[in-house]
Amino acid sequence: MSSSSERTKKALETLSKLQDISELISKVQNKTGDVDDKQFFPIEFPASKEGTKNRQAFIKEELQLKPNHLFQEGKKLTAEDFRGNIESFIGCSQVPTGMIGPVRVVGSVAQGDFYVPLATTEGALVASYQRGAKACTLSGGATSICLIESVKRSPVFKFDNLGDLGGFLVWFYNQTDQLHELVKKSSRFAQLQDISSNIEGNHLILTFEFQTGDASGQNMVTICTDQICQFILAKSPIKPKKWYVEGNYSGDKKATSLSFSSVRGKKVTTEITLPVSIVKDVLKSSPKQMEEYWKTSTLGTIQSGAIGAQGHYANGLTALFLATGQDVACIAEAAVGITRMEVNENGDLYASVTLPNLIVGTIGGGTGLPTQKECLELMDCYGEGKARKFAEICGAVVLAGELSIAAALSVGHFTSAHQKLGRTK
Amino acid sequence: MSSSSERTKKALETLSKLQDISELISKVQNKTGDVDDKQFFPIEFPASKEGTKNRQAFIKEELQLKPNHLFQEGKKLTAEDFRGNIESFIGCSQVPTGMIGPVRVVGSVAQGDFYVPLATTEGALVASYQRGAKACTLSGGATSICLIESVKRSPVFKFDNLGDLGGFLVWFYNQTDQLHELVKKSSRFAQLQDISSNIEGNHLILTFEFQTGDASGQNMVTICTDQICQFILAKSPIKPKKWYVEGNYSGDKKATSLSFSSVRGKKVTTEITLPVSIVKDVLKSSPKQMEEYWKTSTLGTIQSGAIGAQGHYANGLTALFLATGQDVACIAEAAVGITRMEVNENGDLYASVTLPNLIVGTIGGGTGLPTQKECLELMDCYGEGKARKFAEICGAVVLAGELSIAAALSVGHFTSAHQKLGRTK
Amino acid sequence: MSSSSERTKKALETLSKLQDISELISKVQNKTGDVDDKQFFPIEFPASKEGTKNRQAFIKEELQLKPNHLFQEGKKLTAEDFRGNIESFIGCSQVPTGMIGPVRVVGSVAQGDFYVPLATTEGALVASYQRGAKACTLSGGATSICLIESVKRSPVFKFDNLGDLGGFLVWFYNQTDQLHELVKKSSRFAQLQDISSNIEGNHLILTFEFQTGDASGQNMVTICTDQICQFILAKSPIKPKKWYVEGNYSGDKKATSLSFSSVRGKKVTTEITLPVSIVKDVLKSSPKQMEEYWKTSTLGTIQSGAIGAQGHYANGLTALFLATGQDVACIAEAAVGITRMEVNENGDLYASVTLPNLIVGTIGGGTGLPTQKECLELMDCYGEGKARKFAEICGAVVLAGELSIAAALSVGHFTSAHQKLGRTK
Amino acid sequence: MSSSSERTKKALETLSKLQDISELISKVQNKTGDVDDKQFFPIEFPASKEGTKNRQAFIKEELQLKPNHLFQEGKKLTAEDFRGNIESFIGCSQVPTGMIGPVRVVGSVAQGDFYVPLATTEGALVASYQRGAKACTLSGGATSICLIESVKRSPVFKFDNLGDLGGFLVWFYNQTDQLHELVKKSSRFAQLQDISSNIEGNHLILTFEFQTGDASGQNMVTICTDQICQFILAKSPIKPKKWYVEGNYSGDKKATSLSFSSVRGKKVTTEITLPVSIVKDVLKSSPKQMEEYWKTSTLGTIQSGAIGAQGHYANGLTALFLATGQDVACIAEAAVGITRMEVNENGDLYASVTLPNLIVGTIGGGTGLPTQKECLELMDCYGEGKARKFAEICGAVVLAGELSIAAALSVGHFTSAHQKLGRTK
Repeated sequence: MSSSSERTKKALETLSKLQDISELISKVQNKTGDVDDKQFFPIEFPASKEGTKNRQAFIKEELQLKPNHLFQEGKKLTAEDFRGNIESFIGCSQVPTGMIGPVRVVGSVAQGDFYVPLATTEGALVASYQRGAKACTLSGGATSICLIESVKRSPVFKFDNLGDLGGFLVWFYNQTDQLHELVKKSSRFAQLQDISSNIEGNHLILTFEFQTGDASGQNMVTICTDQICQFILAKSPIKPKKWYVEGNYSGDKKATSLSFSSVRGKKVTTEITLPVSIVKDVLKSSPKQMEEYWKTSTLGTIQSGAIGAQGHYANGLTALFLATGQDVACIAEAAVGITRMEVNENGDLYASVTLPNLIVGTIGGGTGLPTQKECLELMDCYGEGKARKFAEICGAVVLAGELSIAAALSVGHFTSAHQKLGRTK
Repeated sequence: MSSSSERTKKALETLSKLQDISELISKVQNKTGDVDDKQFFPIEFPASKEGTKNRQAFIKEELQLKPNHLFQEGKKLTAEDFRGNIESFIGCSQVPTGMIGPVRVVGSVAQGDFYVPLATTEGALVASYQRGAKACTLSGGATSICLIESVKRSPVFKFDNLGDLGGFLVWFYNQTDQLHELVKKSSRFAQLQDISSNIEGNHLILTFEFQTGDASGQNMVTICTDQICQFILAKSPIKPKKWYVEGNYSGDKKATSLSFSSVRGKKVTTEITLPVSIVKDVLKSSPKQMEEYWKTSTLGTIQSGAIGAQGHYANGLTALFLATGQDVACIAEAAVGITRMEVNENGDLYASVTLPNLIVGTIGGGTGLPTQKECLELMDCYGEGKARKFAEICGAVVLAGELSIAAALSVGHFTSAHQKLGRTK
Repeated sequence: MSSSSERTKKALETLSKLQDISELISKVQNKTGDVDDKQFFPIEFPASKEGTKNRQAFIKEELQLKPNHLFQEGKKLTAEDFRGNIESFIGCSQVPTGMIGPVRVVGSVAQGDFYVPLATTEGALVASYQRGAKACTLSGGATSICLIESVKRSPVFKFDNLGDLGGFLVWFYNQTDQLHELVKKSSRFAQLQDISSNIEGNHLILTFEFQTGDASGQNMVTICTDQICQFILAKSPIKPKKWYVEGNYSGDKKATSLSFSSVRGKKVTTEITLPVSIVKDVLKSSPKQMEEYWKTSTLGTIQSGAIGAQGHYANGLTALFLATGQDVACIAEAAVGITRMEVNENGDLYASVTLPNLIVGTIGGGTGLPTQKECLELMDCYGEGKARKFAEICGAVVLAGELSIAAALSVGHFTSAHQKLGRTK
Repeated sequence: MSSSSERTKKALETLSKLQDISELISKVQNKTGDVDDKQFFPIEFPASKEGTKNRQAFIKEELQLKPNHLFQEGKKLTAEDFRGNIESFIGCSQVPTGMIGPVRVVGSVAQGDFYVPLATTEGALVASYQRGAKACTLSGGATSICLIESVKRSPVFKFDNLGDLGGFLVWFYNQTDQLHELVKKSSRFAQLQDISSNIEGNHLILTFEFQTGDASGQNMVTICTDQICQFILAKSPIKPKKWYVEGNYSGDKKATSLSFSSVRGKKVTTEITLPVSIVKDVLKSSPKQMEEYWKTSTLGTIQSGAIGAQGHYANGLTALFLATGQDVACIAEAAVGITRMEVNENGDLYASVTLPNLIVGTIGGGTGLPTQKECLELMDCYGEGKARKFAEICGAVVLAGELSIAAALSVGHFTSAHQKLGRTK
């Protein structure tokens, strides 16, 4: 975040809310009562009919929801139900979906206990995230903050030489007021937040950063950027020789160092302090052992040439994206970040995750489709005004997963857990 | 591939088959007759009832398959149907699934015309891949080769000092024969293919590379590696102070430079030469324009700090992984590679994709679940002996997608295509 | 460059000057007359006494300089001559130094024909750069622009939790005016240009970006940042638990994706268009062959996991840094960037280099030492007001080197050149 | 290191020697007597005439050496003295050179107390390395091991299609015996150690790995690889359409993930355990504070997108390369690695550095030039049979530098040290 930018101002507003966190925590606790073991559905492997019934009953009765399609109790879905989301439709892939919770989140927007749907075919995944979630919730909940937001498009312009490029760019920076106007006309949701430029020889990459309301926004920013380009190409006294609406620079659908070090979609950071007793009872490890594993793991991932340093963000995010109609291909970019685990002065375990490239939405894309909408509704995350809330829940889920896998690896339970739960052959 | 390794020998066997490619091409063509426009289902946006019926009829009649669950004509699926694949089951997420084809592949194993299911909620995705597939098939089909295979686990061992580490390692390299025996006992499918070591101060990372038959194999290699570790820890005269079965070095569930520059899962490379006329008629661009865009895009992605250089491997792979019960979280690692597009001496377009980290299987994981198995069967890719075939089809699908997006961007159709097909709000 | 920043305004001023380039070119040409072959010192291998004499005479007579120490005609140098630059002095390492030129540069500051000293022990290096320089000068000179400047320090602060961090940051962003004042008091040269923040769990990295006048500025920014930190630690109502003046985030002395995608020191881009005839006569290649090699080289370097894509920036920069008293260790960060080579519409070769991390100065550090100062004076680059000029010359030298090596590799002369010039055994 | 390779066998031989380390330590100690404070030259800032005299006397009397050129007491150096190392000679750049020591090293080859010359113009550098060296020597010396060696060239071959490429490669792998013969004929020193291949579409990169005796070897491997290429191009039944002797893949003169994760030049790892008292007395910090800083620094550098994680390898390596006639441009590739600092069970500080890309030699290149040879002789590292020894000393110097800077940053002395020693303005 740069001192002069609009984005910084918004982030500071969010951060200001953090000062009320101690209050929030007590509010959350008052609302849900003290959580105890009984409130967590027992982890079943494999899932039983009885257990399924209980969980479905809970959804209906306690959450007051009727996710008919998810429960396979709705009408047969046809091409009509997926207009605009699929071409050459032939049917529906059915992905088994489990639920973890309560996941207690104390965020700037997400506040309360959440039941989170995870769609996956990987045995042990749901159980592992549930274990981590339990540790978090019993410790008072994870603090989770959606810090900043930005979706980018990066058109590229080729000129004969630097002289032409320079003339174009000087002219361009005088048009920025008009560009904001243009964006307002092009989209109900998109706000042009920042413009930056990158010169490489006779090539100029312009990067337009947008806030996209509660949509993940990739199409929206493409359309707005195209409008901007058409406008400037029509008006500019110096014309580029070639241009493309995307120069493969914005990080769309791929892990990049550039997105990792700034933001793509939403940047969320989530933290928790787990008392020794909960690390021991729920995670079967100790703060010291987890810190040790984390240090070793961090040096290992550096040597593998990863972007960032984390355990398996991809697992939980993919299951959550899939259930809720996010663009699952964005896992390629979203599953990067930094996990931290340290013993604090009291001997407790401080842990955090930071996800700078969380591309999510609660309107548009696949979010309004039958089961996808139902899954978002499980967390009261469907529709306008919910995207930041959903992002903060994503952070908490990812944190739960990092804690669980690090605990298992730290004490040598990783293999046995997978052997018990996940071996289908 | 190193000159001395077992893996190289296998790769050379595969490559030897490539010399029969000219024959293969004619075989493929004889089998399917000359492909013409009429054989491609018209791309519908949105998909219609009528179109769905036609495609479903084609699957039943021409492909002689009955994918009841995919068609939503089967029984309600319950927890029982997903034993070992999900915990805390609550229902099924339904993901709309389209089909592209015929995708003609001339591979070392995959040979013929394939109809490929893609599960996604992103409008325009299926249409775009179908367009690319059409260009490839009309050009005689893509050559696609699964070159090498390897799934890794990287346990890490901590010693007091380099002296102890050295003593352990010297001892260890004398045990390798016994490790191969041990692996044979631990798994029907896994073959220990290579062992390598990485010393960093007093920490030793051992990497065990396995062939995993037709399973994607992550659990299998965890179990085998754990067995190996238990064995060496029991026998070694010098004991490590700490060890973990995975040191976050193997690249599991994340894009890493190390996996990118070697192999994780399967390494596939796929190529095609498209005549000018097909680039023009089907892709609405020209070889020259596509090469130009590709050059600009490659420099753009370098500046973004990506691993590799490609357009949107994640899109097609995610949709295909999702439909076929692959571990979708592996998109984080699989969606890297190198795309190449060049005008050749005749003015035609040479294009290739290289995917070094394709983690896929045709047994185990989610591959045997109801709709997932049906989707694999659409391509005759379910079960033993099919994984390399499936990997070669993956390569062809990815190539189709790269061609289509590059074409659209090269002539400025990218935005309008998304505006027409993909804007749900 | 972000639309709102101070830095952008400065960059636009520089770019505005580019519109005068056509005039500049003619000015330069008028000043130097038409360059022809005779003006280039013949490349000698090995260098002869006679040739040395001629070049030294040229320096004395034409350039009107007396670099006694460089010529080994000065007094013996002692510890006294290197106060503040060395501890535990034992003597002087003597590095043979050659000269290339005339290197014609048409920059925003550097304008004219330059004779550039290169200190190296690698045979063939000076000859190769001279060849590239000749091609550039005969083609009218390289356009070279120092676009933006910034030297950074990134202190890191640890808090108990996100709540405290947020409170601190909100407070901090209200102090920025005072920080500018503080910097003015701390240094004659440093200007605080931008402040940015990066939150990762309970850790906050603040990045302070400075313009450092004509010094490379690393010490200056350390001192200013320390002052800032002392100030905010004294005043802030919320104290961090720990802090460090550098969190190993600023990219000091290492290649990083973050510095590569923004700027560290100076960002310079340099371009040239070489007529076919000069590519053929001087570089012994053709534009087509050089573009071909460049494409292959670019894909090769992507596969090696490099940051950026270039040939051997390190060679020329190291020799130039060494001769001119730059901090040679900064090669680790400076030798990254993007090289581009393309055949243009006329069949000529367009080539450019972009160096985003050029840490250089013309005052302070080693620039005032005996031979180092003399070498800067060869280019009229010693002292205040010369750093941007020197940076633009660096760009031209690097471009010359990229052209020469690509030419050699493109036609298979690389090995023979090294065999002839560089094999000391 | 791969289980099957020649290289692994050599590494295991080296590691076997490590088991004698306890003996070595006592041997070293017997040879030098107990080191105490008095044996370390006082760090002078600035260096005085008196101090210079003392150090020069020590070199003459204790080390029995006469480095006349370094002491500026030799004859004037001319072009003749630098045949094969410079073209277009104009004079000598004089770089002030300091000395640190005794640096006690307990390596597989380097064993004893060393006095190390560092050529630099950066104030505080020598002092900082001397401080780190003192801490190491007083702690009994650093264990430093040159594990493996390899210098690479990566020619690239372009074919019409995968079929041709496959045919070529199958043929090629049958010629490998003849290639070893060919290399023996081409070079006295080079040994072909491994060959590997990388297929990307219709492009094949072959990587030839050599041991290069005691030369850094880049020219040697170019010549040998060229010979190999000429041979296979003459003999192969399938000819590539294009080829280049280097595909910008071998990591020459640039930091790459590929070289970092394997080896380029020499891979050295160096470790030490520092007692609390020495951390306190010499480094003015504590093991706990240094571990804390190291953890923070490691997460910081990950976020900057560096390759590896270290503090300032570039500083010491550059100064040492410069003094000893190494190819200083190789700093671009050599200055990467992993630093580790941890409190051990006894509360002492374990620290290590790992440098996988150390390109160094003790013959050839600039090593035989006047002052460069003298500087190598200071450490008895000039000539045949000394390269591994020199590499192990490099590791110890780098470790000293990491300890000193981390100590300074951990307790807030970094700025004041630079203010006192390094501010020339």
